[in-house]
Amino acid sequence: MKNKKFLENGEPTLLLDRETCMANISRMAEKAGRHNVRLRPHFKTHQSIEIGSWFRQSGCTCITVSSLRMAEYFAAGGWKDITVAFPANIHETDKINRLAGSISLNLVAESAETVSLLSQSAAHRTGLYIKVDTGYHRTGVDVKDFGSLDRIVESVSCSENMVFKGFLAHAGHSYHVSGPDEVMKVHRQTLSCVSSLAARYGSACPDMEISIGDTPCCSIAEDFAGVTEIRPGNYVFYDLMQMNIGSCRFSDIAVAMAVPVVAKHRERSQVIVYGGGVHFSKEHIQADDGTPVYGQMAEFRGDRWAEPEHRSYLTSLSQEHGIIQADPAEFDSLNVGDVIPVLPVHSCLTANLSGFYRTLDGNIIDRHFR
Amino acid sequence: MKNKKFLENGEPTLLLDRETCMANISRMAEKAGRHNVRLRPHFKTHQSIEIGSWFRQSGCTCITVSSLRMAEYFAAGGWKDITVAFPANIHETDKINRLAGSISLNLVAESAETVSLLSQSAAHRTGLYIKVDTGYHRTGVDVKDFGSLDRIVESVSCSENMVFKGFLAHAGHSYHVSGPDEVMKVHRQTLSCVSSLAARYGSACPDMEISIGDTPCCSIAEDFAGVTEIRPGNYVFYDLMQMNIGSCRFSDIAVAMAVPVVAKHRERSQVIVYGGGVHFSKEHIQADDGTPVYGQMAEFRGDRWAEPEHRSYLTSLSQEHGIIQADPAEFDSLNVGDVIPVLPVHSCLTANLSGFYRTLDGNIIDRHFR
Repeated sequence: MKNKKFLENGEPTLLLDRETCMANISRMAEKAGRHNVRLRPHFKTHQSIEIGSWFRQSGCTCITVSSLRMAEYFAAGGWKDITVAFPANIHETDKINRLAGSISLNLVAESAETVSLLSQSAAHRTGLYIKVDTGYHRTGVDVKDFGSLDRIVESVSCSENMVFKGFLAHAGHSYHVSGPDEVMKVHRQTLSCVSSLAARYGSACPDMEISIGDTPCCSIAEDFAGVTEIRPGNYVFYDLMQMNIGSCRFSDIAVAMAVPVVAKHRERSQVIVYGGGVHFSKEHIQADDGTPVYGQMAEFRGDRWAEPEHRSYLTSLSQEHGIIQADPAEFDSLNVGDVIPVLPVHSCLTANLSGFYRTLDGNIIDRHFR
Repeated sequence: MKNKKFLENGEPTLLLDRETCMANISRMAEKAGRHNVRLRPHFKTHQSIEIGSWFRQSGCTCITVSSLRMAEYFAAGGWKDITVAFPANIHETDKINRLAGSISLNLVAESAETVSLLSQSAAHRTGLYIKVDTGYHRTGVDVKDFGSLDRIVESVSCSENMVFKGFLAHAGHSYHVSGPDEVMKVHRQTLSCVSSLAARYGSACPDMEISIGDTPCCSIAEDFAGVTEIRPGNYVFYDLMQMNIGSCRFSDIAVAMAVPVVAKHRERSQVIVYGGGVHFSKEHIQADDGTPVYGQMAEFRGDRWAEPEHRSYLTSLSQEHGIIQADPAEFDSLNVGDVIPVLPVHSCLTANLSGFYRTLDGNIIDRHFR
């Protein structure tokens, strides 16, 4: 029954390596400072007022969130400048008005129609970024579609309370590439796109901002020409997906799920752990042989986890069960009752499923936001 | 802005069709009655004391859960006979003892080692089922491995407080087949396996029970020879995965996520909705062409959702965004602000992510269990 001290209440426990997390926070803040861009970190990853407060130590005063409810949560925690980086949902105008009356609130829209609906209901000055698509093709106006962009800019300028802030992009296709070279290709594409926006709108709107930000590009790039602010979020914890992309090293990953072994199957070299889809989420990446990977086993050394000699992956998840395909060299050393650390594939979704974090020195950080 | 009445607080809202849900509950209870097997429904799907109480109307007195914490939650809701259908986690002996002191608690184990550890700490009589593997190969002792089974039976019989109840199987491979014929193949395999257990242990343990239960087999089969109890859970709501397997019809699915449209992309025939991985979970099935499917669009008619004429699927999910690949015939009728119902792929994981259900007549059922 090795390492049971890492479990809270005997159950799967999301561990947080505070030191690594603080280093991740500082590193990005230094990079932003070095390149003279504003850092507006995305707080959807940790969703915690307490962890959010750690960002203040490196001078952070403005943040990004993914929902108005999350904006309300962090506003209650003292944040006064918040961008909701999600296409504005016109069914939440009551929250928009409450927030915009007390903090600097920025919204995102990608159609003149939405801007017009927001304008009709806005009771306070509210910043507005136009979402542009620089190649991800999820949301946003195609960055070359000046006809549509002109109409939205015009529509904002006619609005009494909506204030045009600039253009916002998310190069989420950086999550689907592998290695720094491919990430840099995505990043150069983004920079080229935003420079065309500056050329088109810069003289008429001299204060216009360019906001970009995805963890891979922000972690790897060292050129932010033409960029006003960056909005990475995942870097606070990183995860296997980011390690796979090349955004971070194993040692930069700041969260791991401590799970107890509940059964072993020697004939399949599989270890069954208490830790399933309701703990990790069902996000997965693929191993070289095409096997799905839902997590990677680390090993405890003293008071922290570390990179193991052998590679063993979480290859299947049910609601509460996880199956670790154990390296045969590892299998014998694992026993029923042992607690092992498993690095998550996507820390944002894993953190979203846990009500709290347990730091390596045993403190509980309640996530509160639900 | 059609159908905004279905949104709670303007946000993605998990709708529950109480009538359909009650019909699902009754149908399975009647089937169990008809076959003279005990129904011990798995409550991990709905995780709600209020919905749980609806099962009492059809005479249900015993339940299954997937964790000790969930057992504590339902014990507090008045349930007195609970099986935790998960390999017992020996780090939770405090919860086991608290529960076993006040209700009839059954655990599951698959090794003599676990039984021995449980015995050492058990302060009250606790039922124990031996988990057998009838072909799913996730957990359990191979049903033909009489050597191991003998050792576990022996180990339980030596225990002061652990009481041997019988064998428990979960034919989870029924989730990976398609169509009633394939489901029935799995079910016949289960029945054949359990009959060999009866032959081996029946005379020495005349009260020995056989507990089986997965929603596909329990929904489709009409032969439960040799079975003492069934433990299906998902049937309370069903979902797209079950419809795909053939366990239910579209009209049997009792939950849908109401999501607002936040953007449209005509060139890709895509509709962006506020509803992502934190609402649906990232569980998916595959369309015939290999595209991942995270949900299927239904349509609102009056006060409920119904099967639409055209098929449109949720084909991509980020944390908060969903992309619906809309049938071109459907695309034009959808506007920013419209609210649409989306059937989930896996209702257990979707319900797990929502703090509440909203019934079609507008009542809120808080899920409470966290």
